[in-house]
Amino acid sequence: MPVSSLLVSSSLALQLVSGAAPAGAKPVSTPSAAPVKAYMPPLATAEKLVGPALTEGRAYARLAELTDGIGPRLSGSEGAAAAVQWALRSFKADGVKAWTEPVKVPRWVRGEERGEVLASPLTRGHPLHLLALGGSPPTAPEGLTAEVVEVTSLEQLAALGESVKGKIVFFNHTMAVPADYGRFAGLRGRGPAVAAKAGAAGALVRSLATASLSTPHTGSTRFDDAGPRIPAASITTENAELLHRLLAKGAVRVKLVLGGSELPDADSHNVVAEIRGREKPQEIVLISAHLDSWDVGTGAHDDGAGVVMVMEAARLIAKLPQAPRRTVRVVLYMNEENGLAGGRAYAEAHAAEIPKHVAAMEMDSGGGRPVGVSLRAGAGGQALLQPWMSPLVSLGAAAFSSREAGGADISPLMPARVPFFGVEVDASRYFDVHHTHADTLDKVDPQDLARSTAATAWVTYAMAESPETLARPEAPASAPVAAPPKAATGH
Amino acid sequence: MPVSSLLVSSSLALQLVSGAAPAGAKPVSTPSAAPVKAYMPPLATAEKLVGPALTEGRAYARLAELTDGIGPRLSGSEGAAAAVQWALRSFKADGVKAWTEPVKVPRWVRGEERGEVLASPLTRGHPLHLLALGGSPPTAPEGLTAEVVEVTSLEQLAALGESVKGKIVFFNHTMAVPADYGRFAGLRGRGPAVAAKAGAAGALVRSLATASLSTPHTGSTRFDDAGPRIPAASITTENAELLHRLLAKGAVRVKLVLGGSELPDADSHNVVAEIRGREKPQEIVLISAHLDSWDVGTGAHDDGAGVVMVMEAARLIAKLPQAPRRTVRVVLYMNEENGLAGGRAYAEAHAAEIPKHVAAMEMDSGGGRPVGVSLRAGAGGQALLQPWMSPLVSLGAAAFSSREAGGADISPLMPARVPFFGVEVDASRYFDVHHTHADTLDKVDPQDLARSTAATAWVTYAMAESPETLARPEAPASAPVAAPPKAATGH
Repeated sequence: MPVSSLLVSSSLALQLVSGAAPAGAKPVSTPSAAPVKAYMPPLATAEKLVGPALTEGRAYARLAELTDGIGPRLSGSEGAAAAVQWALRSFKADGVKAWTEPVKVPRWVRGEERGEVLASPLTRGHPLHLLALGGSPPTAPEGLTAEVVEVTSLEQLAALGESVKGKIVFFNHTMAVPADYGRFAGLRGRGPAVAAKAGAAGALVRSLATASLSTPHTGSTRFDDAGPRIPAASITTENAELLHRLLAKGAVRVKLVLGGSELPDADSHNVVAEIRGREKPQEIVLISAHLDSWDVGTGAHDDGAGVVMVMEAARLIAKLPQAPRRTVRVVLYMNEENGLAGGRAYAEAHAAEIPKHVAAMEMDSGGGRPVGVSLRAGAGGQALLQPWMSPLVSLGAAAFSSREAGGADISPLMPARVPFFGVEVDASRYFDVHHTHADTLDKVDPQDLARSTAATAWVTYAMAESPETLARPEAPASAPVAAPPKAATGH
Repeated sequence: MPVSSLLVSSSLALQLVSGAAPAGAKPVSTPSAAPVKAYMPPLATAEKLVGPALTEGRAYARLAELTDGIGPRLSGSEGAAAAVQWALRSFKADGVKAWTEPVKVPRWVRGEERGEVLASPLTRGHPLHLLALGGSPPTAPEGLTAEVVEVTSLEQLAALGESVKGKIVFFNHTMAVPADYGRFAGLRGRGPAVAAKAGAAGALVRSLATASLSTPHTGSTRFDDAGPRIPAASITTENAELLHRLLAKGAVRVKLVLGGSELPDADSHNVVAEIRGREKPQEIVLISAHLDSWDVGTGAHDDGAGVVMVMEAARLIAKLPQAPRRTVRVVLYMNEENGLAGGRAYAEAHAAEIPKHVAAMEMDSGGGRPVGVSLRAGAGGQALLQPWMSPLVSLGAAAFSSREAGGADISPLMPARVPFFGVEVDASRYFDVHHTHADTLDKVDPQDLARSTAATAWVTYAMAESPETLARPEAPASAPVAAPPKAATGH
């Protein structure tokens, strides 16, 4: 149905449009943009998306299948392979066409791991509660014993020069709130590689955590292909505080035994699904999340929640009497956590299609309640979406966020200037459990998840149905980094 | 100095006393008690106790020695023995006479421990995060594999009869706030013994926790001397929720490997110290805490905080120009956590002296800020203490608590009707870390600890200096149980 016929087909709609955007009124949110064309979105459709998302509990039930049933899903693991098959089966059950696309992924496996602060005049000794960082090589079987040197930045490490040779560099920091993640994630991501180049024998990184009950947070660390690699682990904030207190009084020696190791790259898959658009099927609205998780916990918030949100959005959109104008494509990426191979593989395999990607989102900040809508687009984006916001009011998500939309796996689409959108969720407690044994189903509130699922479904529909598409944003000043944009945005 | 001379020695004091208790006015808190004699406590002394407690940071520094320096202190361990020597040295450094008294303690040692939910049609399997309960026997070296049966009460277990034979009984509950501890502690303390008698092969108990980030809480379980014993462990609340969800769908089998075991009883000690009273040295005000801790974490809140509060109270009272009227005796009990042998040994060794114990307190609810004063005494207790309350106002502790004072280690003094007193502390987050790896120094706020230390010192002094002593309470209706009274009072 062309736009004009929709606009004139209902006197009620006309009346509402007149009320929503009276002639001559400037759009509230984009005073400098061109006036928005009067358009009445099909609000009756909102009921068909928001209603079931809030009442049927399908997203939560599916999250239970993924977390309780399948469990951890680190790239290359049996769990990851099981999740790919589960996603295919689930899309099929939903009547959504789906397929896999090949991704070669790194395969890091955790081994035995333990550590201790050795007895000294300062202490009778303490166990360390740690998790090897993904990418860490193993210690020798008998372990690594060395003195600890504390630093709080890469600059401070550089200033120490040769004095760290043979020692274990301890990266301490002051993360207290989610927004600190971006400030300190580099200590985990790059600190061990830098310490290795300086001749250190090992690295310990304070967990990137907003809370701890003796809860280490793992994560990825990246060594240069040609550079030296040293065993590296995260320790609990409690252990970091202990080391800090002891080091203030004298020398501290630590013993580490880490068995983690990198196996040969493995064959894995992205799972891709789509609902073909009724008018412009070649135009693609991509919605995504990552199917892999860390090997501890069950990845309920990271990123099981995102997975089930976009799967449920697709299921509900597929059940509508009429498909939206454009194609909605779901991608469940593999290997966000320790490589981003899935995001790159998609961008490469679909290079010819990327100019037709009119919008992309990745839900990857946990299963909290929705708090707003974010965009990364050219001028006029908010004005374009404004007429679609009313169904989000009761979900608590009708505000535009000041944050830019983004996502690690969709970052390879940035050079092509694909506009991004997103549903921003409450992530205030996300870093309590992120990358820990505690990222489990019980941490996800079913009602919060349902509300974010409803918002995701509706905003996706808006992108696929809106007569206009988002203006393309500027290309990034530099090539997108391999590090998850999470680190930059605070997620 | 006799009471009368103190009362008339200062016109200011007389004036204040007149204001505090005008002639003919009834005491506010004890309308049925006899009128309180006008008495002006030596408030100038408060400065000498409260001031240093708040400003010198000695309690916190000492807590660092005990937790970072010595570490865990389970009865019979090297850590417990080191703590005894540390306490003796510390009292000596403070100029407080101290000695040890022998206590024969149980010696339970933790071994290897792991568990898993086995793969089934419901799940690919999950590791269990657990801690063997103190008192648990080991499994066979190859472990114990059995089906799980969930119960939420001992009554429900009894109703299952023979059907639990050979199975692992899983005790689930709904603890959410500290006051729930008393309701559910029996599942840990007695559940495994009752399950064993019913023929169960093992027991799992949901951690008694008000928060969890994959954080198991250990604790003691008690088997009857002549009864059967089965391996028993606490699991995280996350794992408890997982088992509950899976069991709602079908059969669940678990494998446990527990290596904990009971060694022969060991020789250990209570540490006793005292400041001899200047007028009535035979009358004893006992202040106490327990020196032992669980073997995980470093017992910072449980009960390192109590230990350093009463040690610092003694140090500050010993430094006063004049000792208080009565003897202040400090007891650092051994074996509160898994036996109460220290509390019993003290009561037995000092049986002849117990009638001269005019008041006793045990600080064992963590290092939170003070919120009030509690009593367990005959009529008139609040009226007796009321004139001493003003220095507690600025500490936030000038209210009388509706809770009865008590303590596990002083419970053997109840049949002799020894009055109890206590400084009540904020324990709202105590059960987040109680009996876990996370009970570490970082969880104790130095200012909160200083304030509770100040309140402890002052209330102790009040008890030792007040002209009158607390009336004795009624004897308990039944003999005090071996279970920590914590379970009854919510601490």
